[in-house]
Amino acid sequence: MAVKSMNDLFLNTLRDIYYAEKQIYKNLPKMAKNAASPELKQAFEKHHEETDKQIDRLEAVFEQFGVSPRSIRCEAMDGILAEGKEIMDEVEDDDLCDAGMIASAQTVEHYEIARYGTLIAWAERLGKKEASELLRESLEEEKNTDRLLTRLAEEEINQKAAA
Amino acid sequence: MAVKSMNDLFLNTLRDIYYAEKQIYKNLPKMAKNAASPELKQAFEKHHEETDKQIDRLEAVFEQFGVSPRSIRCEAMDGILAEGKEIMDEVEDDDLCDAGMIASAQTVEHYEIARYGTLIAWAERLGKKEASELLRESLEEEKNTDRLLTRLAEEEINQKAAA
Repeated sequence: MAVKSMNDLFLNTLRDIYYAEKQIYKNLPKMAKNAASPELKQAFEKHHEETDKQIDRLEAVFEQFGVSPRSIRCEAMDGILAEGKEIMDEVEDDDLCDAGMIASAQTVEHYEIARYGTLIAWAERLGKKEASELLRESLEEEKNTDRLLTRLAEEEINQKAAA
Repeated sequence: MAVKSMNDLFLNTLRDIYYAEKQIYKNLPKMAKNAASPELKQAFEKHHEETDKQIDRLEAVFEQFGVSPRSIRCEAMDGILAEGKEIMDEVEDDDLCDAGMIASAQTVEHYEIARYGTLIAWAERLGKKEASELLRESLEEEKNTDRLLTRLAEEEINQKAAA
């Protein structure tokens, strides 16, 4: 797709994260099912619900830009989720698998933190205040999820995994 | 590779970031060459030098764990860098390309921030203090690079790209 303006660049990146969020939404129930720690299971389930709302927000942002929601394949997220799948398939020990899934989920969150940060800066530059506010809500949720995962790892799961 | 202990999980993740850093090292000169902004070019060149030292640090960490340095393919970084290459190939306008390259480089930095954060926590849990300190030096460099890219985007490049 030809990128001739910041508007085009914004929409291309929006389509990338729209694809990414939908893949994450599909993936989180598998991660919740695999989690041995009840707190980690709950964290993945909660983030599944948040991701659903984040997809709705992205659709609202498309609308504010006057275009229909559309995905473009995000090779980065495909790669990140493939690494997470490998952990689930190959690590048999429950606590080790939990530690590995947290690590993998944190690479997901950080991809999203980078993308939402960029989209917010561009939306502001394009004078789309409402869009930037919606995107900022999702950014804060991603940062909170990342912090929660760090806390679960440090307080409980890494200790069990190293035992 | 069978993961039977936190030591195995650590080494697998170390091999993943070792691969990623080497790919980033190969990629940064292309990004520097493509950058229109002299400050952005300089930022990529500086980070190329830092990445060289980060690879050395990873090799020192392998040594502290008593194994030879080895890569395993990191599909996540391959995907992230493929997206960056698309920007360089497809965005003709110099300022828009700079804005897109910054966005892409920030997804690189965030992947590394997530990975180094995890590796530091696991190295500490495994009682490898020296390794965790080396990894922390790299983590701080990645965070600084991410902050520098945000500053360049906000102070100069996004404005030009939106013009």
